[in-house]
Amino acid sequence: MDSLENLLTGLEKRQVRALARAISHIEDDGPFREAMIAYCFARGGRAHVLGVTGAPGAGKSSLVDRMVAFLRRQGKTVGVVAVDPSSPFSGGALLGDRIRMQDHATDKGVFIRSMGTRGSLGGLAYTTKDVVKIMDAYGFDIIIVETVGVGQAELDIMHVADTTLVVLTPGAGDAIQTIKAGIMEIADIFVVNKADLPGAEKVVSEIEMMLDMKCDHCVFRPPVVSVSALEGRGVEQLWQAVEKHVAYMQESGVLTTRREQRCVNETLSLVDYFWHRLVEKQYRQQDGVSKLLDRVKARQCDPYSAARQILTMICNGVGVGNQGQS
Amino acid sequence: MDSLENLLTGLEKRQVRALARAISHIEDDGPFREAMIAYCFARGGRAHVLGVTGAPGAGKSSLVDRMVAFLRRQGKTVGVVAVDPSSPFSGGALLGDRIRMQDHATDKGVFIRSMGTRGSLGGLAYTTKDVVKIMDAYGFDIIIVETVGVGQAELDIMHVADTTLVVLTPGAGDAIQTIKAGIMEIADIFVVNKADLPGAEKVVSEIEMMLDMKCDHCVFRPPVVSVSALEGRGVEQLWQAVEKHVAYMQESGVLTTRREQRCVNETLSLVDYFWHRLVEKQYRQQDGVSKLLDRVKARQCDPYSAARQILTMICNGVGVGNQGQS
Repeated sequence: MDSLENLLTGLEKRQVRALARAISHIEDDGPFREAMIAYCFARGGRAHVLGVTGAPGAGKSSLVDRMVAFLRRQGKTVGVVAVDPSSPFSGGALLGDRIRMQDHATDKGVFIRSMGTRGSLGGLAYTTKDVVKIMDAYGFDIIIVETVGVGQAELDIMHVADTTLVVLTPGAGDAIQTIKAGIMEIADIFVVNKADLPGAEKVVSEIEMMLDMKCDHCVFRPPVVSVSALEGRGVEQLWQAVEKHVAYMQESGVLTTRREQRCVNETLSLVDYFWHRLVEKQYRQQDGVSKLLDRVKARQCDPYSAARQILTMICNGVGVGNQGQS
Repeated sequence: MDSLENLLTGLEKRQVRALARAISHIEDDGPFREAMIAYCFARGGRAHVLGVTGAPGAGKSSLVDRMVAFLRRQGKTVGVVAVDPSSPFSGGALLGDRIRMQDHATDKGVFIRSMGTRGSLGGLAYTTKDVVKIMDAYGFDIIIVETVGVGQAELDIMHVADTTLVVLTPGAGDAIQTIKAGIMEIADIFVVNKADLPGAEKVVSEIEMMLDMKCDHCVFRPPVVSVSALEGRGVEQLWQAVEKHVAYMQESGVLTTRREQRCVNETLSLVDYFWHRLVEKQYRQQDGVSKLLDRVKARQCDPYSAARQILTMICNGVGVGNQGQS
């Protein structure tokens, strides 16, 4: 097994294998996870994180591949995390990764990693955030997080991004109706992919109409960009839109406040996570808790008094110095 | 304002006004709430709690009124909690309560109380459970909790019941499709109300078919009872079904295990509730928490370390002896 030192030295030296192993370690919720994150978090904050989301079949992977090729031509290094919550598979050995990596096989400036549901700690959202931290410390200029926008979990994943692209396509019925409301809210840029297909213009005007209603007083109105990932058209315009968004965020200070708010949210959600892990452990281990619950069952103690006592017991368990480790 | 002593003495003497005031005190999350519950919980556990749920317009109120009249003729005392999560109104002054109470105006063996969204502590589920505890200690033989079965919150409310009646009606399209899956799961008895309308037989056979599939190995197969609350038909048969369910639960020991499990669930959910209230308070008050969050924002501390330290801070706040009071 890797030692923590080996992993950190490998990351420091920008060894691709160390990066891959570090990410696997996060996915496996390995023993060095928190130490690695502490190391990487202190060295991060430089990459721009792009989120790409949209319904299944919207052509997100092809679009991301086109963006990677474009960015490489600009001399930028790119890390890609492709999150598929419906897949039980993870890791670099995935067929999809191999195919996607082929174009960039000899290019050290690109790293693509697929993740399925293997990640354990609090689900994929935590894992994704940590993988982004690793890639950030590793030194990629751009990190792209790609995921299917189907539920709350995927929305949570998107909260890692500085700029979020929502990908829509013509021909999927009323495109706007088929996309969840919450996903429209997080869009910084709308991408109408498959612009070669009939109906693409209609989707663009539908989105613009929605924005007309919503963005009456918007400081930043999300642009709508048509692309064809298949034909490779529109990628440069898309990147210009991203750069405009970045410029707006830097000038307005929104980038800093967004990132700071993300730090706070992530920390507080980890407090909650550690608490629940602690509670589960204490319920199993603490004799006092089950005795109290038995007293409630027998109506010798009421639920409120019991709950307050249990809270104190659990907190005392933390207070005596194990720092909430579980 | 009432004193705790007055409230408890009034309940002890079975004064209706004390009962009404005690319930208002719960709804207002008043200062004596927990002391009252401790008192009542120790004296409760005798009433049989019936839950009645179903879609809006299923005729739940009329059915409950018929049941109350029937039970009174049997010499049983009845408390009714009618929970309407969509209503902002609560309390005995509600027009609906007055109308519903008219039939029983001089009858001290009946008490009907409507509750809307006024209850604060963890929402209506907590309030309802506590009102049932008060009515139980007051000495009603039967307590009926009536609510619209539309969401998770209403399902939670139903977890107070020993026997749950799910009320369906003909003519609401495919009745079973219109009722949420979770509600079908909690049914101990299916009631097809408005049996005077065409299509009632079809609803009965639809439910039976569903039960044929689901209850291949059921120890207790929920019966399906047709009633007409309007015409007052079927109420006696319904009560016989309830008594059969009670007998089954007593003989099998299910009644005890269900009630014990409810005690455990309620206590553990209160632990969670107190924890979150504590966390909110500490975030506002503890200087250390916001200083740590500032350090995370500046990447001087990573989210994991910060979360563990915040957990310890909050727990220490409890450990020093304030017992989680907030």
